[in-house]
Amino acid sequence: MKSVRTWWRSRHLALGAALVFGAQPLAQTDPLPSWNDGSAKKAIVEFVRATTTQGRPTFVPAVERVATFDQDGTLWVEHPMYSQLMYCLARVPGIVKAKPELVNVEPFKTVMSGNREAIAKLPMPDLEKILAATLTGMSVETFNTEVKTWLAEAKDSRWKRLYTELTYLPMQEVMNYLRASGYRTYIVTGGGQDFVRTYSEKAYGIPPEQVVGSAGGVKYAFDKNGKPFLTKEPKLLLNDNDAGKPEGIHLMIGRRPRAAFGNSTGDQQMLEYTGAGDGARLMMLVLHDDATREYAYGQPTVCPTARSARSAKRSTTKRRRRAGRSSA
Amino acid sequence: MKSVRTWWRSRHLALGAALVFGAQPLAQTDPLPSWNDGSAKKAIVEFVRATTTQGRPTFVPAVERVATFDQDGTLWVEHPMYSQLMYCLARVPGIVKAKPELVNVEPFKTVMSGNREAIAKLPMPDLEKILAATLTGMSVETFNTEVKTWLAEAKDSRWKRLYTELTYLPMQEVMNYLRASGYRTYIVTGGGQDFVRTYSEKAYGIPPEQVVGSAGGVKYAFDKNGKPFLTKEPKLLLNDNDAGKPEGIHLMIGRRPRAAFGNSTGDQQMLEYTGAGDGARLMMLVLHDDATREYAYGQPTVCPTARSARSAKRSTTKRRRRAGRSSA
Repeated sequence: MKSVRTWWRSRHLALGAALVFGAQPLAQTDPLPSWNDGSAKKAIVEFVRATTTQGRPTFVPAVERVATFDQDGTLWVEHPMYSQLMYCLARVPGIVKAKPELVNVEPFKTVMSGNREAIAKLPMPDLEKILAATLTGMSVETFNTEVKTWLAEAKDSRWKRLYTELTYLPMQEVMNYLRASGYRTYIVTGGGQDFVRTYSEKAYGIPPEQVVGSAGGVKYAFDKNGKPFLTKEPKLLLNDNDAGKPEGIHLMIGRRPRAAFGNSTGDQQMLEYTGAGDGARLMMLVLHDDATREYAYGQPTVCPTARSARSAKRSTTKRRRRAGRSSA
Repeated sequence: MKSVRTWWRSRHLALGAALVFGAQPLAQTDPLPSWNDGSAKKAIVEFVRATTTQGRPTFVPAVERVATFDQDGTLWVEHPMYSQLMYCLARVPGIVKAKPELVNVEPFKTVMSGNREAIAKLPMPDLEKILAATLTGMSVETFNTEVKTWLAEAKDSRWKRLYTELTYLPMQEVMNYLRASGYRTYIVTGGGQDFVRTYSEKAYGIPPEQVVGSAGGVKYAFDKNGKPFLTKEPKLLLNDNDAGKPEGIHLMIGRRPRAAFGNSTGDQQMLEYTGAGDGARLMMLVLHDDATREYAYGQPTVCPTARSARSAKRSTTKRRRRAGRSSA
């Protein structure tokens, strides 16, 4: 936790500097209308000005403007369960139908029982069996079709909305603002790269080539008509969590981000790596503390004791809202 | 070889269609001035028109315009030896200086002897030892600096030019033409991803995030001052040759290319995969048959017996020239 604290302190220092030197008023059209005026919003606006204003020592050429965003809990809802895990569980009946012998084999038996409590208690090795059975073994095209079919119909049980509608409007605004300022926005998620790519363009305006995620291998082969295709293999190439995030950023982007956004300890290394670069850098965390409009599960222990850092965090999280898709 | 032949025949059919239906004259400013007028040039121009003209059934939205290029032998000279291998051999004295005990250990002993014939005969396991010793074990930053230092000084023994100047002008023109037509150009190379990324922007106008190559893992750690950094590990994540090319394209881009260019059997699967997509697709091979201006090592056995396919291939290769950087 020490590193997170250190990181947060640096973040606070950067915020302080922004408050002292960022004396320009906001542009007439507010790029972040759903954010309260405060230190967090000012830090974002000042970062964009600092890195996109010609002549400033902190100016960043357009080709180097890269901003990375965690997805689950940063761009869309991750409670009560990751949406991708909901997808995997929903696929189990189809898997069991194709292979009836699985109906008495764990963990498929538990999933088929519909017992939510028992499902929620499945240990990691069982969850991995479900992931392997539902995310691999089929062609890339078949997988994409299965995911899109589910996403077009399945609804979150609390909000009664499609999962791709449960994105955070304030974060959509930040992404739009950064893109309008010449930044390329990337998702860097522990979720499955192929899964997120099926909806990232529609849900966030982020094209598939700008999605870095946990990635499995694929295998090139020919179908009976001699047409080549790729099969998703149960072989993990990149676990895009924790230290895997900067490692994945290097593999897939090859540039250190100028700005990074996360919400959990799984994003710590991505934010550290971003902050270790020179010039102006922006690192932010979304904290979940609004049980009415979303969920409350922030961990205050991750934060430092400094008053103003806490205050900055609060002011950020107050602006986080559950939201439908932005107008972008 | 059968698949290459089949592929080439398909390529020829596409060319034939271009000749029959592509009756429009070239634009006033020729986008491919170093190419002879002929079927190959016409095929490129017709492909661009077919995929970028609104209203045509073959129109491709800008976001989907992806073209992939092999590097060695397709974009720059690969004889008498891959430039990256020249780099690795040039790094060996530095490695031996840091670890003097290696001077009597093979394959370092042979490399240090300077005996070119013996070096050229080193078996693959020995070459792999040299690659591991010179491409891994250091931080990403140290590696980038070492490569850039070498590239700024080392010259090809025959042409007396920097390696990054030994690119093919006709292919630079194709890349510029495609980019001006809304295509994103990617390098998809068996060479090292990190190596190529150090010069791809300068040599080809291709940014690091559009370089897909053979990639090793990196490891996240902290230096003694607590600053995070990435170390290049001797662990191969992606062998970006043969079937590894479509697999790498899926991993790094997530879209099937609309156009693909190669020069060897290592590019076969990338071209097959590209051609298996729907709509207009362009697949081309560079053949090396000009010993005076470059090297002659094309393999006519790869080509089909059909007269017009041979003719199309010849007309392509006649246009290939050794060249300095294009003006782009």
